[in-house]
Amino acid sequence: MAEKLTLGVAARLSTYLRILTQSRKQGLESISSQEISDYANVNPTQVRRDLSTFGKFGKRGVGYKIDSLISEIQAILHTGGEHAIALVGAGNLGSAIATSAMFKDHGFHIAAVFDNDPRRIGGQLQELVVEPASTITSRCRELGAVLGVIATPPGSAQEVADQLAEGGVKILFNYTETLLNVPDEVIVHTINPAEEMLYALYFYLT
Amino acid sequence: MAEKLTLGVAARLSTYLRILTQSRKQGLESISSQEISDYANVNPTQVRRDLSTFGKFGKRGVGYKIDSLISEIQAILHTGGEHAIALVGAGNLGSAIATSAMFKDHGFHIAAVFDNDPRRIGGQLQELVVEPASTITSRCRELGAVLGVIATPPGSAQEVADQLAEGGVKILFNYTETLLNVPDEVIVHTINPAEEMLYALYFYLT
Repeated sequence: MAEKLTLGVAARLSTYLRILTQSRKQGLESISSQEISDYANVNPTQVRRDLSTFGKFGKRGVGYKIDSLISEIQAILHTGGEHAIALVGAGNLGSAIATSAMFKDHGFHIAAVFDNDPRRIGGQLQELVVEPASTITSRCRELGAVLGVIATPPGSAQEVADQLAEGGVKILFNYTETLLNVPDEVIVHTINPAEEMLYALYFYLT
Repeated sequence: MAEKLTLGVAARLSTYLRILTQSRKQGLESISSQEISDYANVNPTQVRRDLSTFGKFGKRGVGYKIDSLISEIQAILHTGGEHAIALVGAGNLGSAIATSAMFKDHGFHIAAVFDNDPRRIGGQLQELVVEPASTITSRCRELGAVLGVIATPPGSAQEVADQLAEGGVKILFNYTETLLNVPDEVIVHTINPAEEMLYALYFYLT
């Protein structure tokens, strides 16, 4: 597996990893390609082909061992390093993100949370204390944060993106509707549920 | 455009539509394929090819007219119908979703919000009054809801999915980590930011 995965394969492996992790939490020990297929909205032949390319073959009537498949996919995707996340915005959305178990399950942890509202600064969000937004750049450098999550009002998003990029953050998850301008080495992923809905509606209602 | 779009094209058009809508909100009237490319993380040749297949060619030095491109893509994706959304869960995440402008921008509107917590039922969330979760099925039928958003604790997700499906909802956006079992005619989209992060990290940090 020295070659770089294609975009499609990496996306599907991330989806399978999410499903396997969920299944394990629900107490399952094995899973069939048909079940993975149902949960992933990917056809079962594709699932078997993806998994067989790195030597994993499900047993007929038993399926795949969840634990070993998780380890395998984690190794391929190079996960498992503890990636530090800087979260900006401690409002409803930021709180929802900070309290989600989804990050921890995949070796991500929120290392710091920032806000510019004096009523929130110094307050507690899970085990973290909300820090002032003015310290984003210096704190990200200190923490070696590679991922930044922007969960602020749209009007603050560009300024926050600048501070995160200045602090060495390489991947921004933008939950606002603001189009962000960032240096070439920084990648922005915009999370907009409406975009996914448009796409889903096109496929299932037309 | 009588033929059904491929999965890839429909996904990219949804992304372009999101970017065009954001650009218009920020006061822009035209946009180049290079700019669309930068915001979409899609290469510019692909952007021009996607748009030229339905007769849109950017003018050199001017780019694409944002307004007309939006109308065109909306027509192709069959958006613009007012799709009723049922939102279940009025906690931090549900509140963040209900207050997002992203849905309205694309012709979606949250028609009803439900919760099973007596302290939340009867309370106000934007212009909506939180309704008891026990009425999900009957209210979804009444409203003709096609989309359901599950923003509850993981332990309630399956029960909520059953009620939504029973009420005629065809597409579920699942923000919980629970793997949902649904009838064949219902599609589940699971929204898990960790999945996108895994994928982003693989591409940009390896």
